[in-house]
Amino acid sequence: MSPHPLDQALALAHSDLRAGLFNGTTSADYWNMVGPFGGTTAALMLQAVLKHPELLGAPVALTVNYAAALEAGPFEVLAVPVRTNRSTQHWTMQMAQADADGKLQVVGTATAVTALRRETWGANDLPMPQVPAPAEVERLAIGPAKVAWVDRYEMRPIRGSIPTRWDGSGDHSETLMWLRDAPPRPLDFAALAALCDGFYPRVWLRRAKPVPIGTVSITTYFHVDATQLAEVGTGYLLGRAAGQQFRNGYFDQAAQLWSQAGALLATSNQIVYFKE
Amino acid sequence: MSPHPLDQALALAHSDLRAGLFNGTTSADYWNMVGPFGGTTAALMLQAVLKHPELLGAPVALTVNYAAALEAGPFEVLAVPVRTNRSTQHWTMQMAQADADGKLQVVGTATAVTALRRETWGANDLPMPQVPAPAEVERLAIGPAKVAWVDRYEMRPIRGSIPTRWDGSGDHSETLMWLRDAPPRPLDFAALAALCDGFYPRVWLRRAKPVPIGTVSITTYFHVDATQLAEVGTGYLLGRAAGQQFRNGYFDQAAQLWSQAGALLATSNQIVYFKE
Repeated sequence: MSPHPLDQALALAHSDLRAGLFNGTTSADYWNMVGPFGGTTAALMLQAVLKHPELLGAPVALTVNYAAALEAGPFEVLAVPVRTNRSTQHWTMQMAQADADGKLQVVGTATAVTALRRETWGANDLPMPQVPAPAEVERLAIGPAKVAWVDRYEMRPIRGSIPTRWDGSGDHSETLMWLRDAPPRPLDFAALAALCDGFYPRVWLRRAKPVPIGTVSITTYFHVDATQLAEVGTGYLLGRAAGQQFRNGYFDQAAQLWSQAGALLATSNQIVYFKE
Repeated sequence: MSPHPLDQALALAHSDLRAGLFNGTTSADYWNMVGPFGGTTAALMLQAVLKHPELLGAPVALTVNYAAALEAGPFEVLAVPVRTNRSTQHWTMQMAQADADGKLQVVGTATAVTALRRETWGANDLPMPQVPAPAEVERLAIGPAKVAWVDRYEMRPIRGSIPTRWDGSGDHSETLMWLRDAPPRPLDFAALAALCDGFYPRVWLRRAKPVPIGTVSITTYFHVDATQLAEVGTGYLLGRAAGQQFRNGYFDQAAQLWSQAGALLATSNQIVYFKE
């Protein structure tokens, strides 16, 4: 059985040149309009941390800044543990790709915080919305989509599906949908980081107008540990995403992902460039 | 007239050693329990970008990771424009402080995106909550507070004020309050970055229990330009903050800041360590 497309997309080979330096190649399976799906880029930045021999604990926070669209082909990711404390570790990452002249150019920057987590009091102040079960919601029928990455996810929109008529009739920016990798794949931190970017641009929904867009920065907080992720397995996640402010070329998106059992697995925010 | 305490706290001298390297000193006026107020640290990271000779545009996104508590005294901030595009610029920052042996240690990392913004279509999908005017809300009377920084802000809590009885009776994590610098100071990006961290720990409100805490990472998106900030002047901002998930030593906080006129100036998220 061949590896899952996501595992192929996230494959990183450790370079001999320097500790924390990894080599990868962009994946056609997760291609977006003018570069790779930003979710896989975020997952790759995290993957470099997760594969680093000095890793302490598990991801708590991840911020990825998209400095330039990657070209199809090889790239490198450097992950550096700049500060290691007793129970937390601070990381800086940078993704680079050779330009036409073979000169390495920075295409993305990132930071992460990993930590050893202990059991404490807890509470969820953002309960999962009441929605019909995945089986009762029709799968978004787009495959083969114009962009490859959309076919790598099983999306079952409950509210705020991608507009079918681009007539400027939009009046809200909230999407609620069940989603998981397609084909199904057991959930882990890298996959969750990618899923947090699995919502189409809020501005398209809000305006019912497909203007050019590009995420410039995404920040994801992980609220669970590896054991809790493993319990989710290949189950569906309920994703919610909404825009908060659209102004002068940028809008933000607040997103949350719950397990089908109602555990808030991750909260994620991004800011996105848009034209017009 | 002596400079505003915030301007003293954010004073950075450009080092001759390297472009983008700045020297500063911690401010007693904004001291917190075991280090400086995290808001001023975030503002200082941004300040290094704003004072950089190669700056393009204005802040759109800022992420600051708190790697260690600063000691009282001098520190340095290095801001590097790692990628400059036609209308966006990507920054990495690092704050360092000499340890007992005089060896520089990383105490914080950060990234920022600045951009030239053009007028576009816009919409606010997170309208300002209906609340009484600042004059109708009593000012939080804590001064002189146990911690200095709290006295640097005029806070008028409408909902979710800091508990007066630590009896474990908490049942929500939302605070709504009018706030501004004290004494009043015309709003700018650095002050706004600091104000986004002006909410006391959500876990204290949620549990009515003052457990040890520490912000590990904060991300702020700026939705306005310098002109729009100038229009706010010394007016009050309406701040809203709420926890979303508290689990195994960490909780997140989603915050929004509106101008008194109802413009959503910034949206900010942070993840915070807590004990027990």
